[in-house]
Amino acid sequence: MAVVGGGVIGLACAWRLAQRGASVRVFDPAAGAGASHAAAGMLAPVTEVHHGEEPLLALNLASAQLWPAFAAELVEAAGIDVGYRTGGTLAVALDDDDLRSLDELRGFQESLRLSVTRLTSRECRAREPSLSPRVRGGVLAANDHQVDSRLTVQALLAAVERSGVTLVRESVTALSVTGRAVTAVHTTSGPHPCRSVVVAAGSWSADIDGSPPAVMPPVRPVKGQILRLRFDPAAAPLQGTVRGLAAGRSVYLVPRSHGELVVGATVEEVGFDTTLTAGAVHDLLQAAIDLVPEVAELELVEATARLRPGTPDNAPLLGPTGLDGLVLATGHHRNGVLLAPITAEVIVSVVTAGTVPPVAVGFDPGRFQRCISA
Amino acid sequence: MAVVGGGVIGLACAWRLAQRGASVRVFDPAAGAGASHAAAGMLAPVTEVHHGEEPLLALNLASAQLWPAFAAELVEAAGIDVGYRTGGTLAVALDDDDLRSLDELRGFQESLRLSVTRLTSRECRAREPSLSPRVRGGVLAANDHQVDSRLTVQALLAAVERSGVTLVRESVTALSVTGRAVTAVHTTSGPHPCRSVVVAAGSWSADIDGSPPAVMPPVRPVKGQILRLRFDPAAAPLQGTVRGLAAGRSVYLVPRSHGELVVGATVEEVGFDTTLTAGAVHDLLQAAIDLVPEVAELELVEATARLRPGTPDNAPLLGPTGLDGLVLATGHHRNGVLLAPITAEVIVSVVTAGTVPPVAVGFDPGRFQRCISA
Repeated sequence: MAVVGGGVIGLACAWRLAQRGASVRVFDPAAGAGASHAAAGMLAPVTEVHHGEEPLLALNLASAQLWPAFAAELVEAAGIDVGYRTGGTLAVALDDDDLRSLDELRGFQESLRLSVTRLTSRECRAREPSLSPRVRGGVLAANDHQVDSRLTVQALLAAVERSGVTLVRESVTALSVTGRAVTAVHTTSGPHPCRSVVVAAGSWSADIDGSPPAVMPPVRPVKGQILRLRFDPAAAPLQGTVRGLAAGRSVYLVPRSHGELVVGATVEEVGFDTTLTAGAVHDLLQAAIDLVPEVAELELVEATARLRPGTPDNAPLLGPTGLDGLVLATGHHRNGVLLAPITAEVIVSVVTAGTVPPVAVGFDPGRFQRCISA
Repeated sequence: MAVVGGGVIGLACAWRLAQRGASVRVFDPAAGAGASHAAAGMLAPVTEVHHGEEPLLALNLASAQLWPAFAAELVEAAGIDVGYRTGGTLAVALDDDDLRSLDELRGFQESLRLSVTRLTSRECRAREPSLSPRVRGGVLAANDHQVDSRLTVQALLAAVERSGVTLVRESVTALSVTGRAVTAVHTTSGPHPCRSVVVAAGSWSADIDGSPPAVMPPVRPVKGQILRLRFDPAAAPLQGTVRGLAAGRSVYLVPRSHGELVVGATVEEVGFDTTLTAGAVHDLLQAAIDLVPEVAELELVEATARLRPGTPDNAPLLGPTGLDGLVLATGHHRNGVLLAPITAEVIVSVVTAGTVPPVAVGFDPGRFQRCISA
């Protein structure tokens, strides 16, 4: 069996499949170097909820439930701590307009029966003393947590290796198809015969030749730009994840225990362009410093741009396709790290039992095809 | 003869000394990787003039006069273009307070009979169409030019090699002194006997053991933080160097012909700390984008912090010391690239003829010593 793509999704699928006895090869010229390398690792179904994405919310919540056990098992299997941290996420607002947006989102979160608590400015600063006194108020999402995405990839690489998975450091450029079934994947070194292929190649999932147009995943690259700052772990600027709006600019700040502060935003730009622009770096720093002034004193150590795999409804493509043996696990957009555990469970069920679990029925890779032909 | 330090100053001295027949060794573990690596390469005595630094102005102007011939001879000797560009420097002001500061500086420049021309907002944008329409006005300094400081270092490295200079990739940690004369420099590999030592080690010039305290150069490190952005050379955002004030923040933008835009400021922080802070990067980008909005679209490719060698009067230390054979060429602060040609001429005169040229008399390394003992 072949897994195309060695990011957090492909590796989680490979690990779970190998645990079930499958002989798995993962193909990736640079495993873990794509969107997973940039990811902030927020496990945040509540603060990431968007209007019109209620089906995705259910999947996100289900995967968040799986994370504690997934993390524990992964740490055990790999011998690498993955930095799973509970403690909730505090969303804050800098000015009155920001607070109105936050309260509007809170109304939506409450209508979905999500656990959120409105905090005053004073309560926000009691929780996070380094917040700007200008912060007008906030919302605590007690169940939105985080994991260190880079450590998670490291641990998954160790775990798959210990499970007997072979990592092939080559790009899959095409599939061989005989009749209605996939029979091999092709790399620069030649064909690799297989009866099952899990495509978990993120933004590049549609770039594999040889499959009929009807089963091509409708993914598009969505650029994310993210910064990494360094702080003294003995004097952490934040106790937990803070996200917020600062004069209309969104930002999140995710502190790792080892002294890394990840600063990003959900600003979206479409296209295969990984240029890190001066404007994006400026806007991230502006919003971060507005909310947490002492961020200005921290060392900027890294600025990274990567491509997230977007889909028409911002939800992933999970399950079988019109081609026998071809299974998709892609299109995770903003939620790749969060959705890794449940994606792996769904793919194991599809590959080993031929059944799509109820939680994944709404994420059939063919759903847009049907819309177009209807 | 030993030259301690392989930045733009040490290499220029070594080149000129070797041309006069001296046998020269340059000691530097990482030639060109210090302040010269960060430098913007502005050759800008007029727009860099500061109240109370009139003696330095004369030296700066004298060196700017030498640059065209120095650059031409260096290009010829090295076979490497150094990107010497004339065309002047436009200083602009974003708001009314900025314009008042700029006009105040212009009054000072005019009182010194420097060539500056007041431009309206419209005239500024006629010269540089990508300037923000918010820019209130500017001052053109027609004689402030630029050179590519990294290409200059590359060319100097090639030129010194062709002149028979030996580059020793080691740090000088101490001097040997016998009586009142220097007799050797010490590196980790041992002593290197010599009768003349030119110390051009920038911020580290005071870190060489073995010399009497009275001849220790009073240099202190002054951090500079600088960004490099990339543009399409066929669509340059700026025709020439633009510097300015944007809501009180100073910034300069220096476009290279090959598509690099250097963005820095003269903000100063003292200490041996080369941390690049989030706040400094933010402030540079903010000011640059305020003045030239399309900078936001450019790719950020590098952020660098380096240490400039400051002195009590911001002027360099040029000439002999109380120790026979020990000559200083350090403390160039913001003006290392600009002052390289004249520094080399002064040092050649001191080392080969034993005379300090009139232009350098005010920059005697002992001048602060006399103040203290007076």
